[in-house]
Amino acid sequence: MTKNAIIMFSGDFDKAMAGMIIANGAAAMGNEVTVFFTFWGLNLLRKPGKVKVKKTTMDAMFGSMMPRGPEKAKLSKMTWATGQMKKTMKRKHVQEITELMTQAQAMGVKFIACTMSMDVMGIQKEELIDGLEFAGVATYIGTADESTITLFI
Amino acid sequence: MTKNAIIMFSGDFDKAMAGMIIANGAAAMGNEVTVFFTFWGLNLLRKPGKVKVKKTTMDAMFGSMMPRGPEKAKLSKMTWATGQMKKTMKRKHVQEITELMTQAQAMGVKFIACTMSMDVMGIQKEELIDGLEFAGVATYIGTADESTITLFI
Amino acid sequence: MTKNAIIMFSGDFDKAMAGMIIANGAAAMGNEVTVFFTFWGLNLLRKPGKVKVKKTTMDAMFGSMMPRGPEKAKLSKMTWATGQMKKTMKRKHVQEITELMTQAQAMGVKFIACTMSMDVMGIQKEELIDGLEFAGVATYIGTADESTITLFI
Repeated sequence: MTKNAIIMFSGDFDKAMAGMIIANGAAAMGNEVTVFFTFWGLNLLRKPGKVKVKKTTMDAMFGSMMPRGPEKAKLSKMTWATGQMKKTMKRKHVQEITELMTQAQAMGVKFIACTMSMDVMGIQKEELIDGLEFAGVATYIGTADESTITLFI
Repeated sequence: MTKNAIIMFSGDFDKAMAGMIIANGAAAMGNEVTVFFTFWGLNLLRKPGKVKVKKTTMDAMFGSMMPRGPEKAKLSKMTWATGQMKKTMKRKHVQEITELMTQAQAMGVKFIACTMSMDVMGIQKEELIDGLEFAGVATYIGTADESTITLFI
Repeated sequence: MTKNAIIMFSGDFDKAMAGMIIANGAAAMGNEVTVFFTFWGLNLLRKPGKVKVKKTTMDAMFGSMMPRGPEKAKLSKMTWATGQMKKTMKRKHVQEITELMTQAQAMGVKFIACTMSMDVMGIQKEELIDGLEFAGVATYIGTADESTITLFI
């Protein structure tokens, strides 16, 4: 089966859209798609609300400064135009980012949260959406070595 | 035949240079290269002058805020040094970005404009340079699945 | 032997970390890894101190404005939090970037400095760390065409 491996390093709205459109497109064509969420990309997997977990002050502060979930993500350029861009996309019937992520998971796209990034950013499993797998770089290399498409987004 | 598939997501000058140098280099070695211009990368395909087309006010405004063609593109970092960088490149006999793009097309590199991005950004075919193909994510996946090199730039 | 080809275009701290963690991870699994340092990524190969070489005023100015080595690299987002992030990583026992680079080279990861970028940025061999190879886009294409993983970071 054709495999595709996407590293979702960025947490930016536009790059997340690109990643999810590719993931859904590939899954719709029957490919086995894995998306590795790492570093800023991890923020795309966060639940929108604050989750009560024990954290160090530093981890709590850092966590509060980063966007909780894709709805809070901003454009990588022209940040101030993010709201406008989202409205435009809606008007032009582009699927919303959260919907694209839900659909990807429903189509069998594997979402992997990078455990090392979770540790560094002080983000815990309870703070992330359901249906994830947790793994590190070795799992990525193993999958990517067998993939036709490998992207770093 | 060896295929390469590049997603040109960024419209930044430095990243466009990187993408085009890779595309030309691969084409020179006999590879079949496809570059998919999407999101900000779409701006690299715009004609330098304003083209008269019917647009909604929003699309017109958005279009006027984004660079028309690669000559207007700026560095992704140290934006203010863009002009200096271009002069330095010229002095050191690096091919200019527009020349690299023309040469790529002349060497048979396929330029594909992402139709969904065109819709979102309100950019119409008349506003883009000649010699393009127009397609969506399925075309990208189909090509990239058969490619040795797949990059997201 | 399984080959992987990483283009290290960015000189940002977070992206350099990602690139080096992937390179080390792949090398540890027995892959033959090549990292091509180009454009801003070239700064990651610079020695930390100022090296006396003959330069034009412009090259000297440009060189002095860019970070000398990975220790000077900053986060691509939330730049101001770079120091804090480095401290957090240390506290959580993540290997430091310089250590990751040294380890990569020790494990046989090939570091290639892009000669065209060196020319454009006015950076000379004497200013870069030891153990590098020097090559251009053709070498990259040749390697990447035979690689399972190809990333543009």
